[in-house]
Amino acid sequence: MKFQNIVDVKLGNNVKIYDFVNIYGCTIGDNTKIGTFVEIQKGVNIGNNCKISSHTFICEGVTIESEVFIGHNVSFINDKYPRAAKNGRLQTEKDWILEKTIVKKGASIGTSVTILSGITIGKNSIIGAGSVVTRDIPDNVIAFGYPAKAIRTIENK
Amino acid sequence: MKFQNIVDVKLGNNVKIYDFVNIYGCTIGDNTKIGTFVEIQKGVNIGNNCKISSHTFICEGVTIESEVFIGHNVSFINDKYPRAAKNGRLQTEKDWILEKTIVKKGASIGTSVTILSGITIGKNSIIGAGSVVTRDIPDNVIAFGYPAKAIRTIENK
Amino acid sequence: MKFQNIVDVKLGNNVKIYDFVNIYGCTIGDNTKIGTFVEIQKGVNIGNNCKISSHTFICEGVTIESEVFIGHNVSFINDKYPRAAKNGRLQTEKDWILEKTIVKKGASIGTSVTILSGITIGKNSIIGAGSVVTRDIPDNVIAFGYPAKAIRTIENK
Repeated sequence: MKFQNIVDVKLGNNVKIYDFVNIYGCTIGDNTKIGTFVEIQKGVNIGNNCKISSHTFICEGVTIESEVFIGHNVSFINDKYPRAAKNGRLQTEKDWILEKTIVKKGASIGTSVTILSGITIGKNSIIGAGSVVTRDIPDNVIAFGYPAKAIRTIENK
Repeated sequence: MKFQNIVDVKLGNNVKIYDFVNIYGCTIGDNTKIGTFVEIQKGVNIGNNCKISSHTFICEGVTIESEVFIGHNVSFINDKYPRAAKNGRLQTEKDWILEKTIVKKGASIGTSVTILSGITIGKNSIIGAGSVVTRDIPDNVIAFGYPAKAIRTIENK
Repeated sequence: MKFQNIVDVKLGNNVKIYDFVNIYGCTIGDNTKIGTFVEIQKGVNIGNNCKISSHTFICEGVTIESEVFIGHNVSFINDKYPRAAKNGRLQTEKDWILEKTIVKKGASIGTSVTILSGITIGKNSIIGAGSVVTRDIPDNVIAFGYPAKAIRTIENK
């Protein structure tokens, strides 16, 4: 691995991280894989046995429990009304409220999904590719669409 | 910063650019921040005090005024009917018409938004995450959806 | 070119590949251009005179015929129900079924399009930006939306 920025990261055992990544100030559990072109910000917690696919962005305020699949090109959000500037100067961290998101154990987030701020994705649930998640998703459902809605229950894990 | 391709760029004062970027032939104003995995093409103009977030693509023909927030994974477009080839050979710049887009002062473009070619985003307006913008958006509104529609006016800046 | 991971790739004549790419185990035809921040996985076949734009992900199981335009930030999928783990351990390739996708000659895939697994995109068809393609698209149509639907026929190539 030649092209990596990994700074101040607490890595579990047997973590695999590909090239072209920007990862800082976070915790990554055992056996988890991180794809190429991934950015993970400070304060993020990722559990054991997860897959974080390429082109994905995980922002501050996100917790990902164990055995979670995060597809390609997935984006999380932590700010409801983002603004660049305030009173003519660039905003700083003090100007916004961090809204937290959690993805519970065993969930799968499909490719190109966007997850708004302050969301809970339930245990074992699947979010279909291309969805925009605007509200909490319960455990054990398949949800998709813009906005993502639960369309059926998952019977067997 | 170790992994950057920045070629022929006119930089203002106090610009901050992260790693893994491909930026060429454009102008970037004072205090503006450019995130990781960003591509900005020739001829783009970006104002002062902007934030351009990671995984975003800004193509030729786009103007971004001052104090604009561009979220993560945002894509602009400048070609209405893109084709790879014409008469069996690869197309060149001469084969297409550049359609220009402008994002006006103080606007915010949410995460994973796609903006079609030839669009104006009004002053101070907010485009919700995951939206696909197919028509002009007026000043001082919140718009979202596919296609993005104005859903309410912003009272106070 | 300084920042490239290109491993075990069969390249045609006059292929142009930009920086910040992760490309392995695939075949790329004559005159084809590959943009920055692109990942192409093993087993992918790309024809002659194609343009693969920046931030795009092409997974195993995808075939792209000649003269195809793939826009920016396009994602393909090869697994219908992705999961990170099975019985408490990380899944491997043996745990999933590869579903194949083909993009036929002369087609154009717009920016930020997501294409589900097992899809055929017809010859010369155009998929509008931001679409999520959930079913096969016939030859010579313009399709868009979530899910993408054919809205009109292309008269003249």
